[in-house]
Amino acid sequence: MEYGFGIDIGGTTVKLGCFQRDGQLMDKWEIPTNRDNGGVSILPDVAESIRAYIRSHALSDSHILGAGMGVPGPVEQDGTVNRCINLGWGVFNAAETLSGLLNMPVRAGNDATVATLGEMWQGGGRGFRNVVLLTLGTGVGGGVVIDGDIVYGTTGAAGEVGHLCVNPEETECCNCGNAGCLEQYASATGIVHMYEKALSSYPGQTVLSDESLYSRPITAKDIFDAAKANDGFARSLVARYTHYLGLACSYIGDIVNPEVFVIGGGVSHAGSILLEGTEAAYQKYVFHACRNAKFRLAALKNDAGIYGAAKLIL
Amino acid sequence: MEYGFGIDIGGTTVKLGCFQRDGQLMDKWEIPTNRDNGGVSILPDVAESIRAYIRSHALSDSHILGAGMGVPGPVEQDGTVNRCINLGWGVFNAAETLSGLLNMPVRAGNDATVATLGEMWQGGGRGFRNVVLLTLGTGVGGGVVIDGDIVYGTTGAAGEVGHLCVNPEETECCNCGNAGCLEQYASATGIVHMYEKALSSYPGQTVLSDESLYSRPITAKDIFDAAKANDGFARSLVARYTHYLGLACSYIGDIVNPEVFVIGGGVSHAGSILLEGTEAAYQKYVFHACRNAKFRLAALKNDAGIYGAAKLIL
Repeated sequence: MEYGFGIDIGGTTVKLGCFQRDGQLMDKWEIPTNRDNGGVSILPDVAESIRAYIRSHALSDSHILGAGMGVPGPVEQDGTVNRCINLGWGVFNAAETLSGLLNMPVRAGNDATVATLGEMWQGGGRGFRNVVLLTLGTGVGGGVVIDGDIVYGTTGAAGEVGHLCVNPEETECCNCGNAGCLEQYASATGIVHMYEKALSSYPGQTVLSDESLYSRPITAKDIFDAAKANDGFARSLVARYTHYLGLACSYIGDIVNPEVFVIGGGVSHAGSILLEGTEAAYQKYVFHACRNAKFRLAALKNDAGIYGAAKLIL
Repeated sequence: MEYGFGIDIGGTTVKLGCFQRDGQLMDKWEIPTNRDNGGVSILPDVAESIRAYIRSHALSDSHILGAGMGVPGPVEQDGTVNRCINLGWGVFNAAETLSGLLNMPVRAGNDATVATLGEMWQGGGRGFRNVVLLTLGTGVGGGVVIDGDIVYGTTGAAGEVGHLCVNPEETECCNCGNAGCLEQYASATGIVHMYEKALSSYPGQTVLSDESLYSRPITAKDIFDAAKANDGFARSLVARYTHYLGLACSYIGDIVNPEVFVIGGGVSHAGSILLEGTEAAYQKYVFHACRNAKFRLAALKNDAGIYGAAKLIL
């Protein structure tokens, strides 16, 4: 039996998994991310945790194929990280560094892109070779896999679909400094922001204005739930959400013409109302030869990162 | 010495070239495109022309590496053409067919994508591995090369950048059936159409309204020339042209993060006024990590297609 490790480095925890070559997850665990001193101990902590696992399971070195790693920032094909604000990392070769610590082959990629590989291998994109993943959470991330290979891009920034400018008229700024980014509308925070801006001018009745029903701030889930219950205001917000998301998918379709869009992240739990609206907007805007792309929900949830990271090496 | 042939099939002529392995063009010539009967004789005519060249130059079969072909429509990686309206072709494997006629290896690709490969090999994208070509002519075409390889897309429709929806508010239709496509603004016909729609409401003076200066319909070149001579109306049209083109380039940048955009086609003769405006709009809209992409003019003009086609096989 041969093994590989998948590592998904996040701002608060590092997820780790030990996989068999065929994709079977043997074990998964987490360690805290220590961001002190520019995150210098993150990779040593990861190496120590993996070595401890190897010892306790008495795995033979000759059966270990290596480790893959997803990093929350731009990563070039050779493993060079181009700054990682969430971890405090600057520019250095993270794959080489961890490989030196573990004495095994290591490859690295951007976390969203690596998750795309995971969903293609064992999740919602299984059976496809041209896959785009969109993760709809606090922000919007994405990854592009063409013909089975990750598209890294020149500076490791391919798949930055959250910053596609879907509304050039927008005057409010995105966190990135631009204005009109997909993430400003089609994220969990984006739809809540659209709700806050539109509520006072909505002429009809809506369950979302009844503060007694919610003893806490309205969330993206509340809005999608209200839309499913046919609340007109909530439906208009979801329509705007899916309009922008489908428009962005049409850009991806026209440029790389994927077989399948896999939709993940917290907002994807909204399910078919999200998929159907997004696909309708995609069909409206995309070039006719790209209309047969499929829309699927992600299947691996928070494990997509460790699956894809392991796939980098297996 | 080893040789390969490059074939660029257009609606009225087929361009052919014989190349040395290192990219040196030995000879180029053209034959008419016979579109009668669904274009059945196009590939036999091409085969006959190449065989005649081989005979007259007494080339030995063992020195011929094969032929590459660019086709004006979507082409899958295996050479399958998915309809080619300009040639009357339906769905069939054009590479296999020509290979059978010539008894040599043949590969095929979409014409704009193949031209991208040509510009990367011997033209404006030389020295780069991640290249996007935009051809600004009657329409807007494009091709995407990542890590030296053509991106074909699932249905051969990757790089259809002329149909990126840059103006979702547009009500007039594009030839493709959608509305708001890049091609409706950033093509030679697009800028003339913007001129025709805006002229009557332009409050100032403009050389473009003086019919006595032009004894023929205004062209894209006239508009760019007037803008270079500081005509305010012409500058506003060019600004709108480069706004849309730069916005579309930002979509390409965010998704595939190329090193260089190569701008070709008839409109590219406008030169620096076009490049500078487009790059400024790109910088405004693209994600910050993608801002270092370069903008270059295409260098091979009408020969990009035969160069890239030959590169498919060499």
